[in-house]
Amino acid sequence: MPPVVTLLTDFGTADSYVAEMKAALLGIVPHATLVDVTHEVAPGDVRAALYLLDRSWRHFAPGTVHLTVVDPGVGTARRALAAAARQHFFVVPDNGLLTPLLEGARVVELPVPASASATFHGRDVLAPAAGRLANGEPLAALGRPVEDAHRIPLPAPRRDGEVVLGEVIYVDRFGTLVTNIPADTLPPVRSVLAAGHGAAWGRTFGDVPAGALVAYPGSGGTVEVALRNGSASKAVGMGVGAEIRVLTVRSKK
Amino acid sequence: MPPVVTLLTDFGTADSYVAEMKAALLGIVPHATLVDVTHEVAPGDVRAALYLLDRSWRHFAPGTVHLTVVDPGVGTARRALAAAARQHFFVVPDNGLLTPLLEGARVVELPVPASASATFHGRDVLAPAAGRLANGEPLAALGRPVEDAHRIPLPAPRRDGEVVLGEVIYVDRFGTLVTNIPADTLPPVRSVLAAGHGAAWGRTFGDVPAGALVAYPGSGGTVEVALRNGSASKAVGMGVGAEIRVLTVRSKK
Amino acid sequence: MPPVVTLLTDFGTADSYVAEMKAALLGIVPHATLVDVTHEVAPGDVRAALYLLDRSWRHFAPGTVHLTVVDPGVGTARRALAAAARQHFFVVPDNGLLTPLLEGARVVELPVPASASATFHGRDVLAPAAGRLANGEPLAALGRPVEDAHRIPLPAPRRDGEVVLGEVIYVDRFGTLVTNIPADTLPPVRSVLAAGHGAAWGRTFGDVPAGALVAYPGSGGTVEVALRNGSASKAVGMGVGAEIRVLTVRSKK
Repeated sequence: MPPVVTLLTDFGTADSYVAEMKAALLGIVPHATLVDVTHEVAPGDVRAALYLLDRSWRHFAPGTVHLTVVDPGVGTARRALAAAARQHFFVVPDNGLLTPLLEGARVVELPVPASASATFHGRDVLAPAAGRLANGEPLAALGRPVEDAHRIPLPAPRRDGEVVLGEVIYVDRFGTLVTNIPADTLPPVRSVLAAGHGAAWGRTFGDVPAGALVAYPGSGGTVEVALRNGSASKAVGMGVGAEIRVLTVRSKK
Repeated sequence: MPPVVTLLTDFGTADSYVAEMKAALLGIVPHATLVDVTHEVAPGDVRAALYLLDRSWRHFAPGTVHLTVVDPGVGTARRALAAAARQHFFVVPDNGLLTPLLEGARVVELPVPASASATFHGRDVLAPAAGRLANGEPLAALGRPVEDAHRIPLPAPRRDGEVVLGEVIYVDRFGTLVTNIPADTLPPVRSVLAAGHGAAWGRTFGDVPAGALVAYPGSGGTVEVALRNGSASKAVGMGVGAEIRVLTVRSKK
Repeated sequence: MPPVVTLLTDFGTADSYVAEMKAALLGIVPHATLVDVTHEVAPGDVRAALYLLDRSWRHFAPGTVHLTVVDPGVGTARRALAAAARQHFFVVPDNGLLTPLLEGARVVELPVPASASATFHGRDVLAPAAGRLANGEPLAALGRPVEDAHRIPLPAPRRDGEVVLGEVIYVDRFGTLVTNIPADTLPPVRSVLAAGHGAAWGRTFGDVPAGALVAYPGSGGTVEVALRNGSASKAVGMGVGAEIRVLTVRSKK
């Protein structure tokens, strides 16, 4: 089974940066299967990268190496890290990308060779480390252990009586509002409010007429709000950070 | 020879959806070679997807699996299908994508497991089926046969004396107008009219001066109209559905 | 070690053109690892393609085949070429893409079969040649030698006292101004002038405050000018061709 390395960056696909990282990877682990998650994260948007990493890694087989390079602090004192967590490997700049994975993780700091370009650790520091992990080298061989990987605050949903209050943490290409409200632990839902707009609770877009809002358990495990045949984000004028209210059914009366 | 799976969707490349499908594929057929056709089909544009699938599958080797997910009806009663046709395999939602391939095809309906996300059959239903076909499982093992796969009407060119009337079925990134008029069965061509603009008949863009229109047998097998060093679509203000007239030479007089 | 073929085009990723080239490659060399450099070169921008090819090929292992198709003259008398240079292979239309590599290179002209689409040599002429090279066929088997591959003038930096004058040869997705001034042979630098805007000399973006300009040795080997947390290109209103002045320290006094 060829080792798999996923790549997630804010490099875009117009330049040769991603290919140079792949060259570094293939130079170390020529038989790897490389899978692009995306390279279109907005420049420096660590939070979006964190969401995409967190929802995608779990679909890959154990042992997969996830190389995530959204790195506005490249070349500064911020550290480069590799981690083993949940039977997967992660290689990242130390800016919070590992936050949801740190519980029980082993983390090492990667040394930065003098020859590394100060603006492209993705190619010269992180990709080589990912390649070595994909080759089966133990994590401990890559650097010295650290216990204080950077964490960023992640918004948590909260309950207020029959209402669950959460927020939009991601907007996808279809304009779907992805929230931080886990769908599988919700009581029965009556409806969802997004910026005052009511959304019917359903299973999929097809459950409502064209142009109507629908909320449902999303494919990433949290509540999503979509517009059938359109962009919910545009229709309700909401983006990342906006409040979402899920009105649940009173369990007893 | 590693099995090949092609992927064609309207998912875009900014989210992790394509990578999650690839994870599902690689979980089943780790040695597969995955080839992206495109993920930039306009959301829900089944007709564009049909064109791209129909022109691309034939360049791959027999046995290739083509996974096409443009699926505005995901989660509704529309079926999920797998098909064997022309020595290739196709996995699609049942919305007409197979129309040009149904003659002589064997088609099965894929069961939808209860655990599948209602908004992401691409990952949870279609990709696993594509992986199993790429692994060599027989089509019949994937579901029960169906005879009534959805068809959509495809515009056919027609002849009126020396004129062949067709229409634009696709516009590519260069602004080239791709028509539904087969190029290899045309009598000798005098010229081509696109929205009243005459295009010289040639072989390639370089046959005309910069800024001039040229029509020629396109690389997909049908007549195309292009503008040298520019966009024919913009220059003549035409898009999909617009009429194209090919003026042929009277064969006898 | 699977053979590697890189692909660099101006085809975009919305159409099926890149996939059709990959089908042609995999038909000849099924075990190849295919790496996209980019397909977003502006249509016909040979200079941008040349820059991206020139900086990316060297990160791959010797023996890699680099297929570059930015080909505004497709179908005309311009030749199709394959070359062996610096232990790598290159397959290109003859429009200057090889200019920096011709010193010591062996170059052959590829025959164009009658069946080739006149508008898509990338799929029908160049990709098959790349596949054969990736399969280990000798260059000489692909065509007859030529000595006069097309060259295009490349702007060279020049020195005027303590000033090195160069120009912007590429602007990347982050708005970074990439110059043609080699960074490793510069005397100590005092500062850099871009359209009259002074940029501090540093190592990376993080060396200056947000919104400030910084110049540094770029990851491609030449001087770059960037804006921390923004686009230098937009901030100073400069693009390809604009003059950059590097003020160096007088070596003696």
